[in-house]
Amino acid sequence: MSKGILVILSGFSGSGKGTLMKRLLEKYDNYALSVSATTRSPRPGERDGVDYFYKTEEEFSRMIEEDAFLEYARYVNHSYGTPAAYVDEQLARGKDVILEIEIQGALKVKAKRPDTVLIFVTPPSAEELERRLTGRGTETPDVIRQRMARAVEESESMEHYDYILVNDTVEECVDELHRLIQAQHLQAVHQREFIREIRGELKEREEHRK
Amino acid sequence: MSKGILVILSGFSGSGKGTLMKRLLEKYDNYALSVSATTRSPRPGERDGVDYFYKTEEEFSRMIEEDAFLEYARYVNHSYGTPAAYVDEQLARGKDVILEIEIQGALKVKAKRPDTVLIFVTPPSAEELERRLTGRGTETPDVIRQRMARAVEESESMEHYDYILVNDTVEECVDELHRLIQAQHLQAVHQREFIREIRGELKEREEHRK
Repeated sequence: MSKGILVILSGFSGSGKGTLMKRLLEKYDNYALSVSATTRSPRPGERDGVDYFYKTEEEFSRMIEEDAFLEYARYVNHSYGTPAAYVDEQLARGKDVILEIEIQGALKVKAKRPDTVLIFVTPPSAEELERRLTGRGTETPDVIRQRMARAVEESESMEHYDYILVNDTVEECVDELHRLIQAQHLQAVHQREFIREIRGELKEREEHRK
Repeated sequence: MSKGILVILSGFSGSGKGTLMKRLLEKYDNYALSVSATTRSPRPGERDGVDYFYKTEEEFSRMIEEDAFLEYARYVNHSYGTPAAYVDEQLARGKDVILEIEIQGALKVKAKRPDTVLIFVTPPSAEELERRLTGRGTETPDVIRQRMARAVEESESMEHYDYILVNDTVEECVDELHRLIQAQHLQAVHQREFIREIRGELKEREEHRK
């Protein structure tokens, strides 16, 4: 069994990346979601180790000191981070691990783990993005305006991603995402063990001939 | 229509990459083979511009001076090269261009065109490689020995390739090759036009709001 691949999904609010991840996990085996650590309290129904790993401020600070996070962010009230140990466990089990985080965090993980695959999810157009944000019917015009302004900023970082995934219809996009991730397993950097093996076999046969 | 992608296939003699390319072009649209230039004479049935571009020594030398090759190699009797113009024409028409060349040439093209995708084709094991070379029934034991010795050398360069494609059964492998190449179209480096467009649209909407 070969090691899994770490995949980061980012994208505009309204790109549909949440639905995409949900469908990916329903439709295909072999994926695991990364579980974040947070200092905020569990909400009713949330479970430790499933929704989040709940940590005290002291525990969180100690994890930072011990370099236990792939990335983390501290806000005024609470902190959030991606514990490396959980991700590594899943990868070692052969699972492809999906991490849904924002651009700053994504670039930090990529710097730490260059074989991480960064995928940016986007609707086919700005018009469609606004239509989706409006269509939810849950956001005030002010919030929609903020999201659209944020999208302008975020669009500046799209080139830092490995892949741009246009989410037109969810079902097609989830299949494309799956094929894209599976193709990453063929990367030479993920085939080191195979390369070592066949090289060893070839040399051994060569030795026998002499 | 977006630009095509330049793909280089290399691999051990006996890896089946010739059959793979043939099946890829039969089974899927949108691929074009690169046509090489050579100073050797056409053999019966070969056509200029289809099998090769036939060049005189002088023409070939002038093409080198004019930097008209993506890569070339001069041997004692003849020279072979990949004319950039033909490849670029196909790419501009939206075709994915497949180039079957050896490792040295592949690395030269990658240096010149970093967005080239290098794929190394290999049988699942050294044993299987030898079985295939022997199974052809056309090679002398001496030639098979040479090919196996060559494979040892070539295996040293596998890490320089982007992808390692294990050719176990041809039909499965050709589908995997197709999916792998199509996934490359999602690379941010091949989505520059889309990124520019959506960024422009987002900014325009932002301006209108102010």
